[in-house]
Amino acid sequence: MANHLHAHSIADLDEVQLDLGRRERCGFPEVIYGEGKTKETILKIFCSLKDHGLDGFATRVDAEKGQFLEQELQRLGYSFQYNPVARTFRLVSFSEPPTVLRGKVAVISAGTSDAPIAEEARETALWTGAEVTLIQDVGVAGPHRLQAKLPEFQDADAIVVVAGMEGALPSVVGGFVACPVIAVPTSIGYGASFGGLAALLGMLNSCASNVTVVNIDAGFKAGYVAGLIAKRRTKNEK
Amino acid sequence: MANHLHAHSIADLDEVQLDLGRRERCGFPEVIYGEGKTKETILKIFCSLKDHGLDGFATRVDAEKGQFLEQELQRLGYSFQYNPVARTFRLVSFSEPPTVLRGKVAVISAGTSDAPIAEEARETALWTGAEVTLIQDVGVAGPHRLQAKLPEFQDADAIVVVAGMEGALPSVVGGFVACPVIAVPTSIGYGASFGGLAALLGMLNSCASNVTVVNIDAGFKAGYVAGLIAKRRTKNEK
Amino acid sequence: MANHLHAHSIADLDEVQLDLGRRERCGFPEVIYGEGKTKETILKIFCSLKDHGLDGFATRVDAEKGQFLEQELQRLGYSFQYNPVARTFRLVSFSEPPTVLRGKVAVISAGTSDAPIAEEARETALWTGAEVTLIQDVGVAGPHRLQAKLPEFQDADAIVVVAGMEGALPSVVGGFVACPVIAVPTSIGYGASFGGLAALLGMLNSCASNVTVVNIDAGFKAGYVAGLIAKRRTKNEK
Amino acid sequence: MANHLHAHSIADLDEVQLDLGRRERCGFPEVIYGEGKTKETILKIFCSLKDHGLDGFATRVDAEKGQFLEQELQRLGYSFQYNPVARTFRLVSFSEPPTVLRGKVAVISAGTSDAPIAEEARETALWTGAEVTLIQDVGVAGPHRLQAKLPEFQDADAIVVVAGMEGALPSVVGGFVACPVIAVPTSIGYGASFGGLAALLGMLNSCASNVTVVNIDAGFKAGYVAGLIAKRRTKNEK
Amino acid sequence: MANHLHAHSIADLDEVQLDLGRRERCGFPEVIYGEGKTKETILKIFCSLKDHGLDGFATRVDAEKGQFLEQELQRLGYSFQYNPVARTFRLVSFSEPPTVLRGKVAVISAGTSDAPIAEEARETALWTGAEVTLIQDVGVAGPHRLQAKLPEFQDADAIVVVAGMEGALPSVVGGFVACPVIAVPTSIGYGASFGGLAALLGMLNSCASNVTVVNIDAGFKAGYVAGLIAKRRTKNEK
Amino acid sequence: MANHLHAHSIADLDEVQLDLGRRERCGFPEVIYGEGKTKETILKIFCSLKDHGLDGFATRVDAEKGQFLEQELQRLGYSFQYNPVARTFRLVSFSEPPTVLRGKVAVISAGTSDAPIAEEARETALWTGAEVTLIQDVGVAGPHRLQAKLPEFQDADAIVVVAGMEGALPSVVGGFVACPVIAVPTSIGYGASFGGLAALLGMLNSCASNVTVVNIDAGFKAGYVAGLIAKRRTKNEK
Amino acid sequence: MANHLHAHSIADLDEVQLDLGRRERCGFPEVIYGEGKTKETILKIFCSLKDHGLDGFATRVDAEKGQFLEQELQRLGYSFQYNPVARTFRLVSFSEPPTVLRGKVAVISAGTSDAPIAEEARETALWTGAEVTLIQDVGVAGPHRLQAKLPEFQDADAIVVVAGMEGALPSVVGGFVACPVIAVPTSIGYGASFGGLAALLGMLNSCASNVTVVNIDAGFKAGYVAGLIAKRRTKNEK
Amino acid sequence: MANHLHAHSIADLDEVQLDLGRRERCGFPEVIYGEGKTKETILKIFCSLKDHGLDGFATRVDAEKGQFLEQELQRLGYSFQYNPVARTFRLVSFSEPPTVLRGKVAVISAGTSDAPIAEEARETALWTGAEVTLIQDVGVAGPHRLQAKLPEFQDADAIVVVAGMEGALPSVVGGFVACPVIAVPTSIGYGASFGGLAALLGMLNSCASNVTVVNIDAGFKAGYVAGLIAKRRTKNEK
Repeated sequence: MANHLHAHSIADLDEVQLDLGRRERCGFPEVIYGEGKTKETILKIFCSLKDHGLDGFATRVDAEKGQFLEQELQRLGYSFQYNPVARTFRLVSFSEPPTVLRGKVAVISAGTSDAPIAEEARETALWTGAEVTLIQDVGVAGPHRLQAKLPEFQDADAIVVVAGMEGALPSVVGGFVACPVIAVPTSIGYGASFGGLAALLGMLNSCASNVTVVNIDAGFKAGYVAGLIAKRRTKNEK
Repeated sequence: MANHLHAHSIADLDEVQLDLGRRERCGFPEVIYGEGKTKETILKIFCSLKDHGLDGFATRVDAEKGQFLEQELQRLGYSFQYNPVARTFRLVSFSEPPTVLRGKVAVISAGTSDAPIAEEARETALWTGAEVTLIQDVGVAGPHRLQAKLPEFQDADAIVVVAGMEGALPSVVGGFVACPVIAVPTSIGYGASFGGLAALLGMLNSCASNVTVVNIDAGFKAGYVAGLIAKRRTKNEK
Repeated sequence: MANHLHAHSIADLDEVQLDLGRRERCGFPEVIYGEGKTKETILKIFCSLKDHGLDGFATRVDAEKGQFLEQELQRLGYSFQYNPVARTFRLVSFSEPPTVLRGKVAVISAGTSDAPIAEEARETALWTGAEVTLIQDVGVAGPHRLQAKLPEFQDADAIVVVAGMEGALPSVVGGFVACPVIAVPTSIGYGASFGGLAALLGMLNSCASNVTVVNIDAGFKAGYVAGLIAKRRTKNEK
Repeated sequence: MANHLHAHSIADLDEVQLDLGRRERCGFPEVIYGEGKTKETILKIFCSLKDHGLDGFATRVDAEKGQFLEQELQRLGYSFQYNPVARTFRLVSFSEPPTVLRGKVAVISAGTSDAPIAEEARETALWTGAEVTLIQDVGVAGPHRLQAKLPEFQDADAIVVVAGMEGALPSVVGGFVACPVIAVPTSIGYGASFGGLAALLGMLNSCASNVTVVNIDAGFKAGYVAGLIAKRRTKNEK
Repeated sequence: MANHLHAHSIADLDEVQLDLGRRERCGFPEVIYGEGKTKETILKIFCSLKDHGLDGFATRVDAEKGQFLEQELQRLGYSFQYNPVARTFRLVSFSEPPTVLRGKVAVISAGTSDAPIAEEARETALWTGAEVTLIQDVGVAGPHRLQAKLPEFQDADAIVVVAGMEGALPSVVGGFVACPVIAVPTSIGYGASFGGLAALLGMLNSCASNVTVVNIDAGFKAGYVAGLIAKRRTKNEK
Repeated sequence: MANHLHAHSIADLDEVQLDLGRRERCGFPEVIYGEGKTKETILKIFCSLKDHGLDGFATRVDAEKGQFLEQELQRLGYSFQYNPVARTFRLVSFSEPPTVLRGKVAVISAGTSDAPIAEEARETALWTGAEVTLIQDVGVAGPHRLQAKLPEFQDADAIVVVAGMEGALPSVVGGFVACPVIAVPTSIGYGASFGGLAALLGMLNSCASNVTVVNIDAGFKAGYVAGLIAKRRTKNEK
Repeated sequence: MANHLHAHSIADLDEVQLDLGRRERCGFPEVIYGEGKTKETILKIFCSLKDHGLDGFATRVDAEKGQFLEQELQRLGYSFQYNPVARTFRLVSFSEPPTVLRGKVAVISAGTSDAPIAEEARETALWTGAEVTLIQDVGVAGPHRLQAKLPEFQDADAIVVVAGMEGALPSVVGGFVACPVIAVPTSIGYGASFGGLAALLGMLNSCASNVTVVNIDAGFKAGYVAGLIAKRRTKNEK
Repeated sequence: MANHLHAHSIADLDEVQLDLGRRERCGFPEVIYGEGKTKETILKIFCSLKDHGLDGFATRVDAEKGQFLEQELQRLGYSFQYNPVARTFRLVSFSEPPTVLRGKVAVISAGTSDAPIAEEARETALWTGAEVTLIQDVGVAGPHRLQAKLPEFQDADAIVVVAGMEGALPSVVGGFVACPVIAVPTSIGYGASFGGLAALLGMLNSCASNVTVVNIDAGFKAGYVAGLIAKRRTKNEK
């Protein structure tokens, strides 16, 4: 207990109290939630993390902030991956040799419009070190589409299912697999979708036993937990 | 217009203003909603309808009222069908010859606990003159169960799908058939099912184009509309 | 069952998995939901459908996408109908001889502001092959307006009723007719209309037995199901 | 202003601070809300009012309290009217000669199950001195029933409309008359009626300009305001 | 009954079915709800009403439509009153001699920000022929402000109380007067005001017996009903 | 920091991990929430606290548990105060001499039915050592009642205002005083009070600056915080 | 795909369509949800599973059904574990040798009243074959209690956190560990807890990245997913 | 009572009825809520207050109004503090000698994005005369960050805790201190945060006894009440 409570595990960046002990306690460094932060603050955190030997990851980085970060990080000579659909920024380290056995995450989306959230989940899982498969537009109204893709996701360690509207896809996926399904309701829909509430409630009431749920549009959190589960395999099998 | 507005199409039974023009205007006699009515009132309506040549139908008849009605209607020599699971009372007329070609209604339920609502839908559709198939416990978590039953419902004129919890079944059924699907959310579930709200919202947001929705636990209304659609075939094909 | 599950009934258009078996299974080709899709994607789907002999239909196509599609489809020599109020695009085939007996759909709206949703329902029903009558601005506060129009909708196979605010019109229409009424709540209103919630709840609780409901502003779905019911007559009576 | 702020207009009955200035300020004595009060407290208030020359009125008096009050008030020699359906207790004064010209209130209910609330409204309006007409079971699904009763309510000074489920009746009534309509949503219904919420929202969004609304099941408040409006006529015409 | 059901009481203006029988049935001509109508449509209705001898009234007329109507109605030589804060347009007739005894309406608002809704109520009541007093910014946190104004509203026939946030003012006003109080919740507030829901619920639960409620921001409806009540006095006292 | 984190400040009572450091950290010992605990568990906690020199306090103790505790605590020779209306149990210590200067708390309730919650607040504040004044039934519909009591609460250190229905009383009280007002919404009411939600929202939106809010029916929490504020005076003035 | 779609993987027990392929597809046999099923039906399913070599598990088995099942399963000579607090029935197989390396699940609850849900999670995880640690009553108001227990849960493969009221515990636990946290909101609380909604929303909005959520009171689902994750370790490390 | 009810304690500024007795009754002058007021009105109130010897305070002053006020107040020679993050304007008086013993308020925020609300609380508390400490970005996911700051807030007279998302921080802070905690939910978050509703409900259900709550984003109200509590110390200790 003593280890993660001493004061020096915090980097005091004025408006930010950066938690440097996060990787030791929780497995991964603190992630940067880009919304409501200035681009300068985001850059400062990336740099502070790098100074402590940590490859940062930022979500909800809009186009304008993204452009700024691209220039600055390039100038600093950092390797990174910017995904404008996912609105994520991922620092990539090449110092460690690639793991031979990596955990597998599948990200499945119900419709074309769910892409930003599905991409956010994919980027996050990649950052955690997982191998990621993305399967899109296989919603329940055309049931054979999902079944045709079964071989691509049946051996995953964890599956992220992204769906708006009635959010029925996680229940159907859950009925085919033996790994945890992390359901992400999206705000895609109109009228009585109430900004994703319908999908959220549907997923919480899923009749499939292996489905847990995250917040509406929380692609990040789903990708993170999927990565956490997949990492376990990596660790165990090494 | 004149026809259905004259005063004599109403039977004044004191606390009830019985709409005798309903069959002429809407295809079927006024249905008796048993909740909040005394057993004596229900009996009085059944008799008044019979006096005008109409076979009545009552829903939400609890056990105590049911027993009373059974005795009284038997005493009066009426043929009837009492379904205690559905909580319905259906007068049966044998004066008309059976239709050769009857419309077909399928009633499909997600789980065993949805039985009362599924039965209410079935009884109502039977009262409208339809041929009815009942398929139970084929929820989406075991997807092959529904597909195994496909031949039993694929040629229906209208399908009633009854489901609680996340209410995903109508979307899946809708993807397999070319007839209207009438979705009935049930109050089965707990926690964030919020008394059927989750299923209701899910069904309203169904990605299947052929799904319309009725009130939570409204097996009656679904069976009624399904019967109305099926009747159309009967009429047309005669 | 075998037929509609083989892989070749899917057209893989990268971001879209087009369900080509939809007409066989469900009666009509897959409909294009324009919101959240680029104009190029919409065009691609129209073309892919056409290549498979199917006349596509797109909803929620805004002005900018509409203009693009108009130019491109014209250039490709396709016959189509663009309705900017309904925001729909409908491909029109002249290869098939017109059906002698077509089913009839009536679309009734409560107020002038409901026009976009009423038009969407009308366009959809036309695409399904139905004959469509549109009756506007006959809300319940002026009750004689509806009764004056009774002859125009009394013989319909299915009626779509579009209303915002308190959503009382479907109940009133339902009391006059013997066909299914599909109620569409609209987001027209303010304050405690809560974006159409008041109308939605009102319609779900309708005391008329023949009323089913679709999502708020879902003119498309109502027109689709009405068309499905009307088509049945066509088929039967041919 | 001075008059109604001096301390002696309050009767201190320990747990109750009885507002004796209410009739002077508001037109009628303070009404006793029976729920959550003991039968002894209710009796004490009735007596204190009587001592100050006021005929009290109590609502939400259940059967057990009602029986007690009947005995006690009889023993005290008070004239009263107990209505067990309405759950109201009304003291009746015979000292004043009946007004020649009394205001007229109509109470209209949609269904048989709305009786307790309709009766509460009727009793309250009677207590305010109005002449009251009660019209029951004329919901919108049988539209000719309401029109048949038009002569009975068209000359009212104020109309109370009581309805559960979708609560559409006030809008329809409002379209026929030139007096204020006070709409009372009831908790009658099931599923998405959400304890009267659907009716409440419907009534608040009424397209009829002359409709105002009170709380769910608040028959008392509607009857009170209707009485207040009707009383105005009495006063003016005297 | 016959009178108000004949077809010729409707003016068919294409997209609008103008209810010409409204004044006969309901006391005032049909009011024009400006939102969602084009300026040309609004003008057309004003003219059609004028052709039938009726002085129209329009609400929710934004600045751009207002400017257009001002020009056109001036060009046509009509007398009118345009209130840009209230967003209303009121045609004024000088043909009738002013009534000697007019009913009195008081409009009371809680805060400065409630002005648009208070003004809408005032304009509407003026249109109905009432004498109107406007009292602003007398919310409950400074209780002596209201009491200082008591003489200005104590003899009103009806009082409109406009308040956002917690909506407590109608209850307090209700405790001082013997006429109906029509409470208008406004969408003024933030956070848990939820767009006026807090004020709406507060007013529905008012402990004052003489308070009825209209929709959030429905200054029009409150002014209309207040005018209806005040008109009664005029009629009676003439 | 060190002091309150060492393990020995916890008493391990099997199903309960009693926090013995609470008084040191938070000013008062841990309070026993009686709901969901067996009477034996409650007794065990009282005794364990007593063993550590602490006089316990329990809320939500129903009649059956209360009777048991009365017997047992009496048998153990403890001095205590059981308030069956408040459903509280308060151990009373006579070892400490009474403070000369005690902080003052006023508890004000809107109606007779709010008594249990008002009593719970009073008992809690008494337990914290405050002097408490209770003023009941002074709701806003009779405004002079509150003003008549002004001298009794104007010098309080903190005021607890308990109200159901529209919850307007705290705003009105807040406008008269210069100390914090802690508002307690109660579940008293019906219909659109939605179990206290209306009062809660009203209080959160109070236009009085000195009003903070606690959970519905949380008389305990309001009394506790009021006591905390009053205690400060005691401490300061000693 | 072929394997899990053939018809013979269903046991047709009349009202139940038992999914025998569940273990093959999803890792564990179908679980029996006891609510809404008769005791006879539950027994029938247990036996049918046993006949197919599967040890069943039932949740939401109330006392009366529990007693019946205890007798019958004993009579049949089955080994089982009945937990009346958790309301679960778990068949125990002794045919397989115990796994040397079992995955570890920690179940942590905030308060004493959360015991039934925590026990349900524990029983479920045990059924999946995991080693389970239960830590109770360590809610956030006494922060040192949780930290004192850190060594007991820090090496878990998955942690189930059960909390009602504000549901803050999962966020705090999540900040200490590197494994997935499955948060279970409970319906413990009152007032604005709205039956667990407050806890549910809190958990969905957790600022800890490793927290996913299940339905209110869904101890079963959390235990199941935790078991699924823990099982992975078992498999991998064997 | 007499003192604060005479009419001359109101300054009639046309659209504003300025309550000049507020400081006498409530301890501080009336605060200017900038939203919905024109910049000219705000200036007029500042000046009117100054004329009566009062230093005003305005909240919700946006950039454009702020710039105007800066110029005008500078021109008038007033000393003031404009905080553009907090959006507040505070007049500063130098006529009174500084209090030797000032009460202490701590403002603690969970995340960087909560800054505007935390700053509003800080400015308000400063205006009330308190000494204020601001501690930012110490949310519960990094628990040691809060504990490291404990010495900075442990001796405060009142603590304002500002948090969005799940709003867990007040409960945790509450467990460490012996003074009142005023919790401010913020609208920071997305999806199921529902504009701050999740944080609001979480805080209302806090298991810490010393937590009261204000409206979403109501930094002002929290700072005001904290100042009121802190002022008490000042007064007492002088």
